[in-house]
Amino acid sequence: MNRSTPPAAVATAVHRVRAAYARIAQVDRPEVWIDLRPQAEAEADAATVDARLAAGARLPLAGTVFAVKGNIDVARLPTTAGCPSYAYHPEADAPAVARLKAAGAVLLGTTNMDQFATGLVGTRSPYGAVRNAVDPRYVSGGSSSGSAVAVALGIADLALGTDTAGSGRVPAAFNGIVGLKPTVGLVPTEGVVPACASLDCVTVFARTLPEAERALAHLVSPTGRALPSLPQRRPGPWRIAVPDAEQLGELDPGWADAFAAAAIRLADAGAQLLPVDPTPFVEAAAMLYEGAFVAERYAAVGAFLDAHAGSADLDPTVAGIIARAGGIPAHRLFADRARLDALRARALASLADADAMLLPTTPGHPTLADVAADPLGANARLGRFTNSTNLFDLAAVAVPAGEVRGLPFGVMLIGAAFTDRTLARIAALLTAPPLPLAVVG
Amino acid sequence: MNRSTPPAAVATAVHRVRAAYARIAQVDRPEVWIDLRPQAEAEADAATVDARLAAGARLPLAGTVFAVKGNIDVARLPTTAGCPSYAYHPEADAPAVARLKAAGAVLLGTTNMDQFATGLVGTRSPYGAVRNAVDPRYVSGGSSSGSAVAVALGIADLALGTDTAGSGRVPAAFNGIVGLKPTVGLVPTEGVVPACASLDCVTVFARTLPEAERALAHLVSPTGRALPSLPQRRPGPWRIAVPDAEQLGELDPGWADAFAAAAIRLADAGAQLLPVDPTPFVEAAAMLYEGAFVAERYAAVGAFLDAHAGSADLDPTVAGIIARAGGIPAHRLFADRARLDALRARALASLADADAMLLPTTPGHPTLADVAADPLGANARLGRFTNSTNLFDLAAVAVPAGEVRGLPFGVMLIGAAFTDRTLARIAALLTAPPLPLAVVG
Repeated sequence: MNRSTPPAAVATAVHRVRAAYARIAQVDRPEVWIDLRPQAEAEADAATVDARLAAGARLPLAGTVFAVKGNIDVARLPTTAGCPSYAYHPEADAPAVARLKAAGAVLLGTTNMDQFATGLVGTRSPYGAVRNAVDPRYVSGGSSSGSAVAVALGIADLALGTDTAGSGRVPAAFNGIVGLKPTVGLVPTEGVVPACASLDCVTVFARTLPEAERALAHLVSPTGRALPSLPQRRPGPWRIAVPDAEQLGELDPGWADAFAAAAIRLADAGAQLLPVDPTPFVEAAAMLYEGAFVAERYAAVGAFLDAHAGSADLDPTVAGIIARAGGIPAHRLFADRARLDALRARALASLADADAMLLPTTPGHPTLADVAADPLGANARLGRFTNSTNLFDLAAVAVPAGEVRGLPFGVMLIGAAFTDRTLARIAALLTAPPLPLAVVG
Repeated sequence: MNRSTPPAAVATAVHRVRAAYARIAQVDRPEVWIDLRPQAEAEADAATVDARLAAGARLPLAGTVFAVKGNIDVARLPTTAGCPSYAYHPEADAPAVARLKAAGAVLLGTTNMDQFATGLVGTRSPYGAVRNAVDPRYVSGGSSSGSAVAVALGIADLALGTDTAGSGRVPAAFNGIVGLKPTVGLVPTEGVVPACASLDCVTVFARTLPEAERALAHLVSPTGRALPSLPQRRPGPWRIAVPDAEQLGELDPGWADAFAAAAIRLADAGAQLLPVDPTPFVEAAAMLYEGAFVAERYAAVGAFLDAHAGSADLDPTVAGIIARAGGIPAHRLFADRARLDALRARALASLADADAMLLPTTPGHPTLADVAADPLGANARLGRFTNSTNLFDLAAVAVPAGEVRGLPFGVMLIGAAFTDRTLARIAALLTAPPLPLAVVG
């Protein structure tokens, strides 16, 4: 905020809400929403914000509007997790929702999602497949599909998502926006329908990194205090671990070049690039759905699915994944945990000298038709780089990094738990407007 | 050690080995051993110890002999875990064994045990049921049955056990000796056949608390440095949480009085007794075998049991428990983990003002005939107070506390992780010879 600006004399929050509903009408993307609030309700909230602001209240997010993924509790709206028959009416906002409201942000509604947050595509919903913000022939990514598209289309300034396998990062990448996946535990997960309860995070989307960081500060603390301090590190330039594109498996055409360009941009900004073997990250990623960890999804909603087998509002792909997870034996979970611990030790050791690791957010971007033709395979491919982050207890920041054939290309910076601020500082090197050449060097 | 004693002029270690083998012949308890070393081998090791001692080597455990539970690797002896067809020949001593040897203790052999450390009775072994040291009609307790009896009968000075459900404490109680169950992680578990790999501890038995503590110091550190420091605590008398006997469920006749006497002895020694509800401890205890955690045993040896189904050397009770564990679904493990976390939070909160909690080690002491009549029920009852210790990541010390009808009665002090020294200091109030009345007060 520019300190020379006088307190808003105009009704900032109300104007922002009106613009949001005008934009909703303009874009004609009804599948973005599960429950969009009536405009009058949102305007009334905004008028309250404007009045409090005029009275001198400190409301740092006043003038912003936000959307909330359908698996996060919002008082007076049903929590559906993308499944109408699962819906319940929460008594209170989830803490993450309450903290944004307390800072002056006005809620627009709840957004569409891959059912039970089980998917990275954005098509697994009885509320309709969420189309990509840039090219509607392509998927939006998921599971936080509606939240990401609402931000990308300029409807909302901020949106809450969740992230277990990559649901707060894949749709950021596909729609050209920022997605912050904070360290597990920084943002309360009370009032969130569990996917894998031990891995789930609340995430935030915004169009720019500073907006996302400001929102995250409020999500972490009701007072909006800063994120965890930058950790102690060896002085000198940022050190970024960057795998060779050949080690990343099959990427969509042009993606290896786009990834290399992002790495070069970091180097041009003064970062030191280090080699790293991504194998433990990719091997652990495959364990999230192919191993025993998926059984945690059955622990969360398996009893509901068993009681509603065959119901028309169940996504058949999601229901199949979770039903099969119910039959996985517990002894496999112990074996997988031991294997994961070994992979995690290798992964952390490989990052010991680095401040962060750079990865493409996904290996590629499928169309809606691609996903319809191979619902499981297309989805599994998308998690190759994101699925291991929460299994390894890491933090991640997903940011746009240019375009490939007219579609957004995105990268992630991932790092140890509680390096959230470090990752954002490094990501800022990628998202800042390029400096004039005369200034660089 | 008395500092005025000159260096041993006699062959201390060799004499101790000869006495041990004489005692073995005298007591006629062949079921104690799985592989007893030839006396000449042990004597040769002892002669080396004596020679090194005479040459000025620092060997704090010189002159002691020890036994090792059959699930712990000893170079040149098979590791059986109580199952002959499972046996393998380890290349090296487990670190716990190596550390005792490095301090000058001489190994006698490997001891009988409940197969795959699955049991608290001491009868589940193809090498024979291990009879109680005091009254052979009663069980020895298990699974570290042979180790405890070897110490109780004066054959060995020290013995290694393991403890997942209480295997390092129940046989201590039943045979009137001391069993230290250190905090998980203090003693390396490399070279130990896993029971529940995430819960297993190496334990030590001795006839007195100082001997057990001295051995534990060497097990924790190759240099025999002291155990973890006493934690910061509020000054004043020890505060011991003691449940009412009525909250402990059915106890054997006379056991409630014996337990009350132990509590009174602590109070007489100056400790302050606090009330505590043992419910979360007892509820968690039931989860170790009745819930999903038992599947970790299948992860350890299930493939072996499947490949050897029906083999004559499998204990049918143990094989049945582990085979059934193979069918437990993973989603139950997630649900049990959540329930355990809640119980642990209650349990730790209930001990927040206490330095330790006093419990009977078991609710009773069955005969061999009792266990034969109800192999599962009699065993399950024995774990009521011990099963939750490792699930809650606590430390424990089991010490004798008198007799009931001519059989040893034992109690445990349990406390937070790394309070091992505190627990031993408190336990010393129970095991020290009573002071003359004139000195007390």
